[in-house]
Amino acid sequence: MNTKDSAEQHSQWKMQVFERFMQILKAPYGDFQAIWNLANAINDEAGFRRTVELLSAHPLAKNAIQNRLLLGAIDLQQLHALPQETLGYAYSDHLLRNGLTPIQSQIVEDEYDYLIVHLTEVHDIWHVVINADISMAGETKLQAFVAAQLRASRFSFAMLAKNLLKTTVEDLDLAEQLMDALTEGWRIGKQAQPLFGVQWNTLWDIPLIDLQAKWNVLPSTISESIAESLSNKCVAASS
Amino acid sequence: MNTKDSAEQHSQWKMQVFERFMQILKAPYGDFQAIWNLANAINDEAGFRRTVELLSAHPLAKNAIQNRLLLGAIDLQQLHALPQETLGYAYSDHLLRNGLTPIQSQIVEDEYDYLIVHLTEVHDIWHVVINADISMAGETKLQAFVAAQLRASRFSFAMLAKNLLKTTVEDLDLAEQLMDALTEGWRIGKQAQPLFGVQWNTLWDIPLIDLQAKWNVLPSTISESIAESLSNKCVAASS
Repeated sequence: MNTKDSAEQHSQWKMQVFERFMQILKAPYGDFQAIWNLANAINDEAGFRRTVELLSAHPLAKNAIQNRLLLGAIDLQQLHALPQETLGYAYSDHLLRNGLTPIQSQIVEDEYDYLIVHLTEVHDIWHVVINADISMAGETKLQAFVAAQLRASRFSFAMLAKNLLKTTVEDLDLAEQLMDALTEGWRIGKQAQPLFGVQWNTLWDIPLIDLQAKWNVLPSTISESIAESLSNKCVAASS
Repeated sequence: MNTKDSAEQHSQWKMQVFERFMQILKAPYGDFQAIWNLANAINDEAGFRRTVELLSAHPLAKNAIQNRLLLGAIDLQQLHALPQETLGYAYSDHLLRNGLTPIQSQIVEDEYDYLIVHLTEVHDIWHVVINADISMAGETKLQAFVAAQLRASRFSFAMLAKNLLKTTVEDLDLAEQLMDALTEGWRIGKQAQPLFGVQWNTLWDIPLIDLQAKWNVLPSTISESIAESLSNKCVAASS
């Protein structure tokens, strides 16, 4: 992370961020080195502190950050044997269908490490919870959701700007769809309960729809009738 | 405008757009030369044709484009004498309060000229109609509204990406507000009737609220309220 002790350093930092942004624009979609380079440049101390401060206002996130809680090892085949309506099945099915594997737990030496590692290990779970596929639009929906949940992540905002500009220039026909995904992800991320620090490994056998209703991550396209039936279901569960 | 007859030209065009984007990032906010340079680079023939095609699907816009209808001269003092609830008063008051003047009608030689001139002359009217102030967030709300109404304007999408990245880097505390404005402008622009080609100079004495209702640009919180009530029930159910 950069520190910004003076106007001069701030100006240098800003120019470096813009240069890294330029590199990621020119790189092929999904160039992780370019993404990593941008993240290292833009994730400054001030922005990181602000993010931790905002997250820590929520007991769940505060506890996770203080105790650096991680999900640990995940057995995809075991989760895939759970009933189809469960989070565990939906998550494992998403990974298996897309040829993905769970992120291996990494060494966490400080709060910054923890923030990155936790967000990385829940990335695919959040994909499933907010119904975001792995297309450019789906990744943008998730990135907007993450931005709304973290509220002060320069990296998340910059990635949204990158996806929007890159799609606008390289594939104009997808730009409207990308904007729809961006606005939907932001809306859901703002209305949803804070998901940072949720210990998903204790929730694998819960029906996904119940978790989506509990955390309030409902698609805006949900019809009133579906909303009503969901609502009745929740009310029934409480009575 | 650029034409893209070959992959080579497309690649050159893309790099020029990214370079102009870089220039606008480094320029002070509101640097019209940098904005103009980006517009000239990014507004390619294909994107422009697609925009005209999409707009022409609406009789109002098609008629305005075919006949190159302009608003003509506007007398701010005369409009400011209208009842306070009228469009004319609201528009003239917006300009007078912000020290702005109506755009003088310009020479229109082709469809591209017409598109730019019409969008320029209605810019401040649209500000009033969608309740967007002239702050960075307000301009972004309007830019997102324009992007949603035009649907294929590379310039509008690029300006949104620019505002988001610039604010993220230069004033992180405003980034969340900017994203709220962007998503609200996009949502209203998608739900609203197409406003391109509306002859506002025939509507000055109509109450603004009636026009907002007629064009469906009133802020709507229906989906949010449904989601909120549902969430409350489900949170209760799970506790």
